[in-house]
Amino acid sequence: MPSAKRIVLASRPTGEPTPANFRLEGYDTPAVGDGQVLLRTIWLSLDPYMRGRMSDGPSYSAPVPIDGVMEGGTVNEVIESKSPNLKAGDIVLAHSGWQTHAVVDAKGLRKLDPSVAPIQTAVGILGMPGMTAYAGLLEIGKPKAGETVVVAAASGAVGSAVGQIARIKGARAVGIAGGADKCKYVKDELGFDECLDHRDPNLAAKLKEACPKGIDVYFENVGGKVFEAVFPLFNPFARMPICGLIADYNTIFGPDTPAPKWANSLMRAALVKRLTIRGFIVWDFESKFPDFLREMPQWIREGKVKYKEFVTEGIDTAPGAFMGLLKGANFGKQLVRIGPDKA
Amino acid sequence: MPSAKRIVLASRPTGEPTPANFRLEGYDTPAVGDGQVLLRTIWLSLDPYMRGRMSDGPSYSAPVPIDGVMEGGTVNEVIESKSPNLKAGDIVLAHSGWQTHAVVDAKGLRKLDPSVAPIQTAVGILGMPGMTAYAGLLEIGKPKAGETVVVAAASGAVGSAVGQIARIKGARAVGIAGGADKCKYVKDELGFDECLDHRDPNLAAKLKEACPKGIDVYFENVGGKVFEAVFPLFNPFARMPICGLIADYNTIFGPDTPAPKWANSLMRAALVKRLTIRGFIVWDFESKFPDFLREMPQWIREGKVKYKEFVTEGIDTAPGAFMGLLKGANFGKQLVRIGPDKA
Repeated sequence: MPSAKRIVLASRPTGEPTPANFRLEGYDTPAVGDGQVLLRTIWLSLDPYMRGRMSDGPSYSAPVPIDGVMEGGTVNEVIESKSPNLKAGDIVLAHSGWQTHAVVDAKGLRKLDPSVAPIQTAVGILGMPGMTAYAGLLEIGKPKAGETVVVAAASGAVGSAVGQIARIKGARAVGIAGGADKCKYVKDELGFDECLDHRDPNLAAKLKEACPKGIDVYFENVGGKVFEAVFPLFNPFARMPICGLIADYNTIFGPDTPAPKWANSLMRAALVKRLTIRGFIVWDFESKFPDFLREMPQWIREGKVKYKEFVTEGIDTAPGAFMGLLKGANFGKQLVRIGPDKA
Repeated sequence: MPSAKRIVLASRPTGEPTPANFRLEGYDTPAVGDGQVLLRTIWLSLDPYMRGRMSDGPSYSAPVPIDGVMEGGTVNEVIESKSPNLKAGDIVLAHSGWQTHAVVDAKGLRKLDPSVAPIQTAVGILGMPGMTAYAGLLEIGKPKAGETVVVAAASGAVGSAVGQIARIKGARAVGIAGGADKCKYVKDELGFDECLDHRDPNLAAKLKEACPKGIDVYFENVGGKVFEAVFPLFNPFARMPICGLIADYNTIFGPDTPAPKWANSLMRAALVKRLTIRGFIVWDFESKFPDFLREMPQWIREGKVKYKEFVTEGIDTAPGAFMGLLKGANFGKQLVRIGPDKA
């Protein structure tokens, strides 16, 4: 029975999470029951949606209970198996959270083939973030050749894929990112047509310049001032998929902050410009997952989609890395390496 | 050359139109050119979208110019024809506006067969309002059996059709209308499951009672406090078509009025409940018009869709009838009879 470590939710944050909201603790993993496996975590994915799970407001998903293990997608090695479908040494995609080990039902685990792609891509470009970009952009955004697609957090796991898929579909991709380095990467490496710094005080004017033919698709994953800059530039019939990343939008526009100035004109604009505004979470489009798993690896092989990882080492780095992620301190897909590929 | 009368836009209203915004004047119809016809107006349709045309703010359609004839759908008789496609005595659907006579290009007129349906239905249940309900509800709202559909102005031209089509599709139809008489008609005659009075101070609580399983489709044609009552009741994956009737929403929530209290939570709700919010105008779905012209007359023959007309007599009654329409003074589709069926 390994000496395991985990990070639990010590208290619920108000606004930005702080170190006091997390607690690192040791624990003994329980015995492995029939149909279960003992997993060792190799990679933990950190994603903005986790901020929503820390609160107990209404959401599409139950909150993490106080003293419960923080939730999260993981890539794991099977250490011990009482399931006929998995054996020790298998690598699986799980959702075992912020912990070094877990005993879980084998059912619901997806076995990964390490020879196909680096295993951590299963929680990145070939996993939930990549699929969020793929499904939201293609099923709701539906960019056509020559149209303009805008996405924020453009160097991040979702945003980077959104812009690159938009380019594959022949659209103009305009990214928004935090700082010159990220913007340079988004333009030079990812091939976006433009990338603007959201810290620029003239963001609205710059965005207008970068979108001379207006905006046809805005992939909403941040909210706030980026949306305010985008809103006046919408073309007729523009589409706005709203993805899970802004689940905690109310930390930006909470009930006690003044209503944003676009609020009064939103409904009128929705009508006059015939906008489509649609919220989604990735698994609303589960039926598209096989298409995604066929197309995305192909695009990566062809060099049409690139991805970047931002890795910290050790379970104890997870809270800090997550707090950084919410402030854009990461540069690429945020991962925590919990253990070596091979034990 | 007949002695004709018309109503022109004398000045642009701020807020509600007043009699001073309209002017009745006599005029001589011009000579009929090649390919043109002289029309005598029989029916003039009055519709809320006309309020938008009186303003010169940005819209999907150009405003009526000052001193220009007020715009509007009409049913007319051909008096004189210099087109091979039409002859004197033909009845046509036109958009000749608030006037007794007009010379227009024959191209773009649709010939009506008076033996099929009362000719004025071409501007009502079998025309733009009916098609607005049909396309908006079926193409965006997509009600499924057992779901709950809410629509305001439920005794009006669009709302009455929305609820009845929802019932045909097996959904629960909850209407909102102004006053006990209209509510009684909506329930007893049109067969809605419920109808609430929007003047009821407890509208929000009553609506919650009337929608015990929440709201799956809200056909938005009024805005304001009805939307505020609907918003908290949206089910996951609810759809909200926004139709042309609220084109002048900014008279309710103008730039100088405080932002509505739902504004702060709209984006969060759109995500958490995965709402679809989509503005449209009827001709965005022009390709569905043949389906509509096949299905709607059939539903009327089967008694599944009923309609009600609210008629005033004479061109000079149009401004008053229109001002009444915007306040809900009409009870059914608002029409002005400009002349007899047969001259």
